[in-house]
Amino acid sequence: MLRDPSAKYRPFPTVDIADRTWPSKAITRAPRWLSTDLRDGNQALIDPMDAEKKTRFFDLLVKVGLKEIEVGFPSAGATEFDFISGLIRSGRVPDDVTVQVLTQSRRDLIETSFASLKGARSAIVHLYNAVSPAWRKIVFGMTRDEVKAIAVAGAKVLRDEAAKQPDVAWQFEYSPETFSTAELDFSLEVCAAVMDVLRPTKDAPIILNLPATVECATPNVYADQIEYFCRHLPGRDAAVISLHTHNDRGTGVAAAELGLMAGADRVEGCLLGNGERTGNCDLVTVALNMYTQGIDPALDLSDIDEIVKTVEYATSIPVHPRTPYAGDLVFTAFSGSHQDAIKKGFAAQAARNDDYWEVPYLPIDPADLGRSYEAVIRVNSQSGKGGVAWVLEQDKGLRLPKRLQADFSRHVQALADATSRELNAADIFACFAATYLPGESDRFVLRDYEETGAAGDRLFVGRVAIDGQERSLSGRGNGLISGVVAALADSTGPTLDVVDYAEHAIGHGAEAQAVAYVECRADDGRTIWGVGMDTDVATASVRAILSAANRA
Amino acid sequence: MLRDPSAKYRPFPTVDIADRTWPSKAITRAPRWLSTDLRDGNQALIDPMDAEKKTRFFDLLVKVGLKEIEVGFPSAGATEFDFISGLIRSGRVPDDVTVQVLTQSRRDLIETSFASLKGARSAIVHLYNAVSPAWRKIVFGMTRDEVKAIAVAGAKVLRDEAAKQPDVAWQFEYSPETFSTAELDFSLEVCAAVMDVLRPTKDAPIILNLPATVECATPNVYADQIEYFCRHLPGRDAAVISLHTHNDRGTGVAAAELGLMAGADRVEGCLLGNGERTGNCDLVTVALNMYTQGIDPALDLSDIDEIVKTVEYATSIPVHPRTPYAGDLVFTAFSGSHQDAIKKGFAAQAARNDDYWEVPYLPIDPADLGRSYEAVIRVNSQSGKGGVAWVLEQDKGLRLPKRLQADFSRHVQALADATSRELNAADIFACFAATYLPGESDRFVLRDYEETGAAGDRLFVGRVAIDGQERSLSGRGNGLISGVVAALADSTGPTLDVVDYAEHAIGHGAEAQAVAYVECRADDGRTIWGVGMDTDVATASVRAILSAANRA
Repeated sequence: MLRDPSAKYRPFPTVDIADRTWPSKAITRAPRWLSTDLRDGNQALIDPMDAEKKTRFFDLLVKVGLKEIEVGFPSAGATEFDFISGLIRSGRVPDDVTVQVLTQSRRDLIETSFASLKGARSAIVHLYNAVSPAWRKIVFGMTRDEVKAIAVAGAKVLRDEAAKQPDVAWQFEYSPETFSTAELDFSLEVCAAVMDVLRPTKDAPIILNLPATVECATPNVYADQIEYFCRHLPGRDAAVISLHTHNDRGTGVAAAELGLMAGADRVEGCLLGNGERTGNCDLVTVALNMYTQGIDPALDLSDIDEIVKTVEYATSIPVHPRTPYAGDLVFTAFSGSHQDAIKKGFAAQAARNDDYWEVPYLPIDPADLGRSYEAVIRVNSQSGKGGVAWVLEQDKGLRLPKRLQADFSRHVQALADATSRELNAADIFACFAATYLPGESDRFVLRDYEETGAAGDRLFVGRVAIDGQERSLSGRGNGLISGVVAALADSTGPTLDVVDYAEHAIGHGAEAQAVAYVECRADDGRTIWGVGMDTDVATASVRAILSAANRA
Repeated sequence: MLRDPSAKYRPFPTVDIADRTWPSKAITRAPRWLSTDLRDGNQALIDPMDAEKKTRFFDLLVKVGLKEIEVGFPSAGATEFDFISGLIRSGRVPDDVTVQVLTQSRRDLIETSFASLKGARSAIVHLYNAVSPAWRKIVFGMTRDEVKAIAVAGAKVLRDEAAKQPDVAWQFEYSPETFSTAELDFSLEVCAAVMDVLRPTKDAPIILNLPATVECATPNVYADQIEYFCRHLPGRDAAVISLHTHNDRGTGVAAAELGLMAGADRVEGCLLGNGERTGNCDLVTVALNMYTQGIDPALDLSDIDEIVKTVEYATSIPVHPRTPYAGDLVFTAFSGSHQDAIKKGFAAQAARNDDYWEVPYLPIDPADLGRSYEAVIRVNSQSGKGGVAWVLEQDKGLRLPKRLQADFSRHVQALADATSRELNAADIFACFAATYLPGESDRFVLRDYEETGAAGDRLFVGRVAIDGQERSLSGRGNGLISGVVAALADSTGPTLDVVDYAEHAIGHGAEAQAVAYVECRADDGRTIWGVGMDTDVATASVRAILSAANRA
């Protein structure tokens, strides 16, 4: 039993910012993106990536369009250092991509970090130290001033080391780690002190990265913190405000989005939300969320399957089937009403013939991500006629009349109830064929026929096997169908009243087939559907009537 | 390449509510919870649950403390109907649990739904129809009035059917489906019309469930919609406002939380976020988010592993390792600085001896969820000394002096770099033993020894195999350690200057072992650590010195 938590946990303190403006804002442009897949993401793996995996991941990030990529923690060990310095020498870093490395605030570690970047065209050195009271008290046993001094000392080493390699276009990033659980005024004080050392300008700004190292409150609180910080930072225009959220409360994406509304300029995260514990902000989700609002995210996510494949390969962690935009099930509707609505949405889209995307239950066009519509609908016992009809149309080109959809859905329903599993397209077509299409074991089997006569008075003469015995049937009517119906009624067949009829082609050219649907009323008032297929449109109609006769 | 999305997608319209109050609020109490695992969750599965799985899931929901459970869609087919009516007859539904069923607004479907509930003690009949413009236009081809008439007609059937089974304690729920993409004033109009039929009161309120059927905007917009709806609903106190979010933008949990701040009373969702496409609101996450703020969620999530196991069994979908609170990796820190901080956090927690939970990087005590600390830390090439020391302490009871931690971490680092994989506790202890503990192939191997003499003038006489040859060594000092050092210096051994010494017991009673750590300075100024273990505290010290001698 979970005990009463009130003695063990306390509500997170709120921010004193009653005049906050972010709730009335919206995201209107893409932020700067920083991928930390190779750092925060990598350090959170059971099996960290080897150099081959890191290289493949780096190439993916470049392809996706990331312009800032944190490639590691050079002072953490020989593996990290060698990968980073090797990457820079390899020529794999395009001119418009800047690598970033993370370092704690110690002279030797910072020196190692700069050493790893030798020969880079441009680079961001990312300095951090934790500033929150819990860390000061529990981890360091330090006062505020001592913690601030660590940041300032590190900033000085940054400044001096950068001066030693003047050919590199340096940028500096400072993270007051544990920002979201620190006193805002202290974070501001430390950041201002770091800025005093590094003297950023509007044209050469510092990146101030404000981590929700551990997500500790609802996402609006983080947004309040960001807005407060942006308002009170001296020299705001000489700083790029960067967000780095985690997902401990399942709201890392929301925190990043509300943080952008609150004034931030940059988002750090990982593709598909890898990262320590519950993961970092998922950059794919944030970017595609913007995209569905008509905002160019400045990332190319048009081949989502390749991204999934590479991330799974490199991290050895599967992408969950319900991951927004990327999961296997996110463009799948199982329930009948959803399937019906989607089908109508696609039809309306085609009829409207404009660019605007408006399909029920699909917030994005799967094609934009390189996914196909085929996978959209599967059929199980909770699916309705819309889904079944869709599958037949997509898979076999059959466009069932609406009342036939309803008739057929009962058969599918019964099959799904009996099998208790998802039915695939082949199952559904097999059910359709068994239910409607004529077969050799049926009572009436067409061998051949002739149709003669003048307009309005046609004679149908057919050879039909009835209960295995071949017979000649004939009937007159104003057309082929009425002739067949009359011929059947004259034989031992049922009396059918054709109340509706539809026919269409499947495919085109020599391969084309015709499919005919007839809705009949039998003597006893029941509705009976018949379906016939043939390369000849007339023969398809005859077969459809015989199909109905067989089912009467 | 993702093309410019501005022609295809449009920004979601915002809500005109500049005087919103929710951003200044916090969640202060548990809402009413409704599990839709057996309905929205089940209909989104590739293989829907069979009756055995549904029953097992239902039992789990009861055990977790859900008091309102949507058990299905009785009119969807025989499987559904039979499960629901069977469940009610089975006696598995506790007196304080109310089942809920979903129905579209058609007389025959509603009648079937009521029929399935025959014999229930209490039940909620949940009526829905979609109200948004896209659905009206694309799916139904209906005007607002026609859509409203559907809801009103359904409500009348609800009222009349309920009257026919007066022994059941009925509640009614109405969902204006696609609420989040509908015009707020129209949703209000339809809900008010439904209330006019059902005449709810403060004591017998209607549940108005406001779905984000598809998540289409940042979560603050949903909160605005909820606050607007709550403000403008006539007879607000006769309605329970219920949230039903989806996760298409990865912010379904955030939307539910901000919606609660905006005035809602109830949350619908699934355990661990199952549900259509990207899933429903994850009830476990929302509940535990409250718990970590000191708020009793009124759900018992103390055996999270059992919840994970049952959900995975029933849905055939694995729980992702980074799922908040429930995933395999969420209480795992790999990086050295994290591990060090957590270790200090546990120590401070123990020293402080109050109930308040404050451990870096762990927003919740894993023990509250039935998880153990053992899994917290693993070691890889990015782990630091804190993590290594933690593993040795947890696994072997070794409490390494801080400078020995640093010394040893270099050996672990080298091993991790060489193997490129995670090291487990056995790997780490094997590395520790190979590095420090004396072995038969060492240069100096202790056979036995005597210590005699008075206080301050002690004589050590030992039999030691040196390079395989057994010799007798003796040395004087003011204690055992100085005697051993002198004996070694008199032989062919190194001259060691012992600068620090520590010893502690492992275990207690007859099984207890002593472990001694000595930090020595060699002739050449290098620091050399030695470690000895023995059942005898004195012998452990002697072994520690010999360990240092071997490593000199």
